[in-house]
Amino acid sequence: MKKIGIADTSFARYDMGKSAIDELKSNSTGFKIIRYTVPGIKDLPVACKKLFDEQSCDIVIALGMPGGKPIDKQCAHEASTGLIQTQLMTNKHIIEVFVHEDEAKDEKELAWLADQRSREHAINCLDLLFNPDKLQKNAGKGLRQGYEDAGPIKG
Amino acid sequence: MKKIGIADTSFARYDMGKSAIDELKSNSTGFKIIRYTVPGIKDLPVACKKLFDEQSCDIVIALGMPGGKPIDKQCAHEASTGLIQTQLMTNKHIIEVFVHEDEAKDEKELAWLADQRSREHAINCLDLLFNPDKLQKNAGKGLRQGYEDAGPIKG
Amino acid sequence: MKKIGIADTSFARYDMGKSAIDELKSNSTGFKIIRYTVPGIKDLPVACKKLFDEQSCDIVIALGMPGGKPIDKQCAHEASTGLIQTQLMTNKHIIEVFVHEDEAKDEKELAWLADQRSREHAINCLDLLFNPDKLQKNAGKGLRQGYEDAGPIKG
Amino acid sequence: MKKIGIADTSFARYDMGKSAIDELKSNSTGFKIIRYTVPGIKDLPVACKKLFDEQSCDIVIALGMPGGKPIDKQCAHEASTGLIQTQLMTNKHIIEVFVHEDEAKDEKELAWLADQRSREHAINCLDLLFNPDKLQKNAGKGLRQGYEDAGPIKG
Amino acid sequence: MKKIGIADTSFARYDMGKSAIDELKSNSTGFKIIRYTVPGIKDLPVACKKLFDEQSCDIVIALGMPGGKPIDKQCAHEASTGLIQTQLMTNKHIIEVFVHEDEAKDEKELAWLADQRSREHAINCLDLLFNPDKLQKNAGKGLRQGYEDAGPIKG
Repeated sequence: MKKIGIADTSFARYDMGKSAIDELKSNSTGFKIIRYTVPGIKDLPVACKKLFDEQSCDIVIALGMPGGKPIDKQCAHEASTGLIQTQLMTNKHIIEVFVHEDEAKDEKELAWLADQRSREHAINCLDLLFNPDKLQKNAGKGLRQGYEDAGPIKG
Repeated sequence: MKKIGIADTSFARYDMGKSAIDELKSNSTGFKIIRYTVPGIKDLPVACKKLFDEQSCDIVIALGMPGGKPIDKQCAHEASTGLIQTQLMTNKHIIEVFVHEDEAKDEKELAWLADQRSREHAINCLDLLFNPDKLQKNAGKGLRQGYEDAGPIKG
Repeated sequence: MKKIGIADTSFARYDMGKSAIDELKSNSTGFKIIRYTVPGIKDLPVACKKLFDEQSCDIVIALGMPGGKPIDKQCAHEASTGLIQTQLMTNKHIIEVFVHEDEAKDEKELAWLADQRSREHAINCLDLLFNPDKLQKNAGKGLRQGYEDAGPIKG
Repeated sequence: MKKIGIADTSFARYDMGKSAIDELKSNSTGFKIIRYTVPGIKDLPVACKKLFDEQSCDIVIALGMPGGKPIDKQCAHEASTGLIQTQLMTNKHIIEVFVHEDEAKDEKELAWLADQRSREHAINCLDLLFNPDKLQKNAGKGLRQGYEDAGPIKG
Repeated sequence: MKKIGIADTSFARYDMGKSAIDELKSNSTGFKIIRYTVPGIKDLPVACKKLFDEQSCDIVIALGMPGGKPIDKQCAHEASTGLIQTQLMTNKHIIEVFVHEDEAKDEKELAWLADQRSREHAINCLDLLFNPDKLQKNAGKGLRQGYEDAGPIKG
């Protein structure tokens, strides 16, 4: 049975891990979920590494909500760099789901965005694991997670 | 027989992978193409790593279309850094073909650019694989992919 | 018995290591503390690496106070990147506790912040080591270390 | 016999590799040159890695001409980071010779600069390989490659 | 007997390596110094790596003087990142001593700063090697190298 890791944070202001888990369970079966919560996004790379190496996960969804200040942007950059490094060390995918606090106009929209993006990326996770042909069919389609799709451009 | 990997995204708004594959097939034979589509450009480094390690590719063309916002530029930077790291871990070339959404004046030009750059880099891929002497002959010639060549400067 | 490493600096203007150690000892037992002080934050990554490899630490708290100038921000970025790399090389957590000199309005608040953040992260360290369920219960709760919690947002 | 690698690009607008090779041959003997031309500067790190691992080079000169736009600066940063990583993986020197298009006031000066910097770094390459004492004698002398030396400061 | 590496550059406009060596010898005995001069700061990471791997150094002092332009700042960032990576690969300390050309108001002060910072970091090097307890005693004391200490803040 496949194992899906969920790495999330107590820093985030919305329980994105819960949304992702709910979406995973609503759409598929035949996998086990292992959740690991850490303080902040810079703790996510090693959390994912441990989920792969110590818990034998096949893929991990890493969820976080960077704040809106310059230092938060830098933390997100450092975390993302570490997540890519982790993937290269393990040959496994990590679906990064970051919602920046300044992406939404108010708290209500921010909560909606955090839920929606987590759910749509949960589907990407399932597709990478069980359904890679669906992703290939969508190549170049301008898909987005959270807000509406940009769509393909016409030549 | 050589294996050429095509790593592309569903985030891109143009099917750059298709352009690259079409150009490869129009110009050469004696290779097999393996395509792997992932959600976004930050998923490309591990996609390429898997194409090398699990599919025995000899070279990979990685195609993506970063958006025009600062966060998109940062994602492109993180992806590029990961693509270079992947190459150093495998001793294989990855031809990065990124088209930034703000490089063109409108959607029509953007589609043209995405197609054209993918095709010209497909030729670079074939040259690296089968025809390194042609690249050496072009050293210092100011070649560009997509828009017209800058050309050599005169002393 | 678990070993907790404390890596700190002589550059910092507050003895954050002392605060962290005091908090650790006030809240738990059954662990040994190994302290290693280096000149500046860029010396912290290898200090942590040595605490893991040569002192068999199970986790490290890395404490530092970057100055307020652009060059200091860059040093902090380089140090953070190294700390993440160290974690990926060792599969162990490093709790980074950085207090930037321009985060507080005066020296008194800065001292309070340095003490408070060190203490709250010491608790995170204990939770990661002995009490991961508590962290999971706090997923998405908008917790902060130092200043007051941002709290969860409502949808 | 020592092997010197020359890694250069078809993106560059001046044949810097030719200048470097000419200078190497004019100043020394007892080495073999292996040239490898790739499309752009981001292809240089793996080109150098292959020159070390597959061609047994003892040192490599990596030459490139980043454009003047912000994206070009970022590419140069990514390439440089990769070149440093390559050196650490191989314990061999790479002499990076980058000429930025906005360093010169016109094309004529740019061509002169590209030629001159390539030649002066070719000498550095020979010194690292055959004559390290000369470099040590020049420690702190404010040497530059291309434009005139800054020279030592007086206390 | 311990071996201390000195890695410096011909780009620097002051012989910082000489200052560091003089200070080391004035303050301690029982170690051997191995000096390695390279062209610029981006050559320092592999120089340090070679001092550890090929010369069996126990610690290295890496000295350089980045210029005042944006490109120089970027070079310093790349060099620093490489120096941290080197330390993580070897589990040995590198004391980075960089003096930025725009840190001083004139050449005379710059020369003084380069000399003074090199000397104070030479003492840090000796303390890391022979006297770690002294560093721990100074934790949180706001020490600086070159200009005067910032000192501890009061709560």
